[in-house]
Amino acid sequence: MADYTQLAQVQNWVADQHVDVAYFSNFQTVQYLTGFGSDPIERVLALFVFPDAEPFLFCPALEVEAVKDTGWPYGVYGYLDHEDAYAMIASQIKARSTHPTKWSIEMGNLTIERFNAMHSQFPEAMFDIDATDYIASLRVVKTQHEIDLLDAAGAEADYAFEIGFQAVAAGVPEQRVAAELQYALMKRGVMNMSFDTLIQAGDHAAEPHGATSDRKIAKNELVLFDLGTIHEGYISDASRTVAVGTLTDKQADIYKVCLEAQLAAMDAAKPGITAAELDKVARDIITKAGYGEYFIHRLGHGMGQSEHEFPSIMEGNDMVLKEGMCFSIEPGIYIPNVAGVRIEDCVHITADGCAPFTHTSKDLTYVG
Amino acid sequence: MADYTQLAQVQNWVADQHVDVAYFSNFQTVQYLTGFGSDPIERVLALFVFPDAEPFLFCPALEVEAVKDTGWPYGVYGYLDHEDAYAMIASQIKARSTHPTKWSIEMGNLTIERFNAMHSQFPEAMFDIDATDYIASLRVVKTQHEIDLLDAAGAEADYAFEIGFQAVAAGVPEQRVAAELQYALMKRGVMNMSFDTLIQAGDHAAEPHGATSDRKIAKNELVLFDLGTIHEGYISDASRTVAVGTLTDKQADIYKVCLEAQLAAMDAAKPGITAAELDKVARDIITKAGYGEYFIHRLGHGMGQSEHEFPSIMEGNDMVLKEGMCFSIEPGIYIPNVAGVRIEDCVHITADGCAPFTHTSKDLTYVG
Repeated sequence: MADYTQLAQVQNWVADQHVDVAYFSNFQTVQYLTGFGSDPIERVLALFVFPDAEPFLFCPALEVEAVKDTGWPYGVYGYLDHEDAYAMIASQIKARSTHPTKWSIEMGNLTIERFNAMHSQFPEAMFDIDATDYIASLRVVKTQHEIDLLDAAGAEADYAFEIGFQAVAAGVPEQRVAAELQYALMKRGVMNMSFDTLIQAGDHAAEPHGATSDRKIAKNELVLFDLGTIHEGYISDASRTVAVGTLTDKQADIYKVCLEAQLAAMDAAKPGITAAELDKVARDIITKAGYGEYFIHRLGHGMGQSEHEFPSIMEGNDMVLKEGMCFSIEPGIYIPNVAGVRIEDCVHITADGCAPFTHTSKDLTYVG
Repeated sequence: MADYTQLAQVQNWVADQHVDVAYFSNFQTVQYLTGFGSDPIERVLALFVFPDAEPFLFCPALEVEAVKDTGWPYGVYGYLDHEDAYAMIASQIKARSTHPTKWSIEMGNLTIERFNAMHSQFPEAMFDIDATDYIASLRVVKTQHEIDLLDAAGAEADYAFEIGFQAVAAGVPEQRVAAELQYALMKRGVMNMSFDTLIQAGDHAAEPHGATSDRKIAKNELVLFDLGTIHEGYISDASRTVAVGTLTDKQADIYKVCLEAQLAAMDAAKPGITAAELDKVARDIITKAGYGEYFIHRLGHGMGQSEHEFPSIMEGNDMVLKEGMCFSIEPGIYIPNVAGVRIEDCVHITADGCAPFTHTSKDLTYVG
């Protein structure tokens, strides 16, 4: 159950900014601040926070009971599909704020259409305080509770690798490997992957945004796994690359270089280094080995409730890493028509280093 | 492969509206108009259409090859994470339109932040033509090709029911039933469900927005299935409720009433009836039987690329149904602490009626 510590911080921020109403429209922000997680898609889910009045949640009528079940101690109001959600919201706001003129909104999430709907209820108001970066600055440093959930999700990913490696053999389609590991997870009650499981064999793995296909694994290939689960709203995300049969010198070399880059970045990740510097640690190793042009993405991405958070570990990002930040370290080398290797752990920054959420061995592993 | 018929219609619309640039930011619109389907999450994927110049796609650099693989015959430009996407877009636009002052945008999708980023590149421009409803008006009537894909997705859902019904037995957890049917689908290469498979037994099914849990199915219960797959970007979505053991008169009665309502709506769905009238056909039957208060959602939702399209089959929607429209017909009766029943097919409107995408029997079926 949420302890609403972050919600209290947001209320203080709202008061400091002299904001009359803060309107949170991103369902992940709502989950973070209230403990109630649900993607409403085209329906309206919103949290309203005031400097001197209690916050309230607004949601589809069907969700009201689920909100109450979380222990949410403030108001929650549901609407039916044919009702005017924004008129209902406006009347709740007016009951809490007599002249709400200064608004904060999540500009990185709110659509023009919803902005217009809200604006039409309060035509005199100014909607010029963006809460996007502020919320991101809260979410970027994880609490111990969040780290515990990320550790639990990581353990599920480790189990998925164990099952998946057993399923690899020459002649087996990539999709079958994904099916076996997802089935094993579901039998343990892990029903949701955090993204489509990626199993790519041989030259197929040189397409880093390709999809798991019916391509059969062959002898003497590298097989790339990238997978993750969702554990109570927090994700895992990890990659391993394993060998079937005998590798060529080239295959073995790109694995060795990628692993060296990954381990060097794991070693360098600590409070004080910038995101760009950390990217460079791994990139320099790959570049010196002659594979720089084949490492075609950033070193990593922030993660927690999703794999699309801050900090982004890339060139140009001067954010200084600090304790509690969580992100992936995932160098990759993709040589068209030859092979692709990626090795990835997500980690959290500790007092003097970093600790991974996944623990599956990264030594070159032969399977099948 | 896309034939770009809809893209040509959009170009004509852009010319008719005297728009200089139309900016499509919704990835489903991009998929619909270009045949390239990818959810870029926090990255930028956009289609730009002009009255007198060729359209172009803008996307993450990693996706450029995948766009070309679709056969896209116009420009496609990729950006790397550290590059300024909107400056790059602006330079492509200026190469095609000397003074782009009148813009159309998707107000239902575009965030304030992205709007501001685009606006700052063209500070003199007017962004006042909303393309949201126009695109929805195209998408609401499906082509024969789309209906073929929806039929194929429906066949996958029918197979899932077949496997799932076999997995039901007293003592089996809901999650295990979901695991078995999803595993069977994956073994056939169907890797993605269109939403979280819902298996709910007994009184648990009276929570229409609950989730599949580790609750064990018991004897003499109704078990509600709601599931769907994704087939080449088009979805299935269907519900069945089956019986384990012997039913009470009450359980049997709510099944009978729900089925009667579903069949009556299937019979009434044809060109000329409005969405609201169709909702009323089913609702009246349930209300007359005394269960009106337990049918707590609209009769159905539009579907195609997702289960969140038009037309919404509900009170207050006077949209007249016409040939090619696709939507769900899914009455439900949820009696707290007793049982929940929902029976759902998605259908397309034909010249003189409707045809379902799923064909699993709706007669009360005993399993386990």
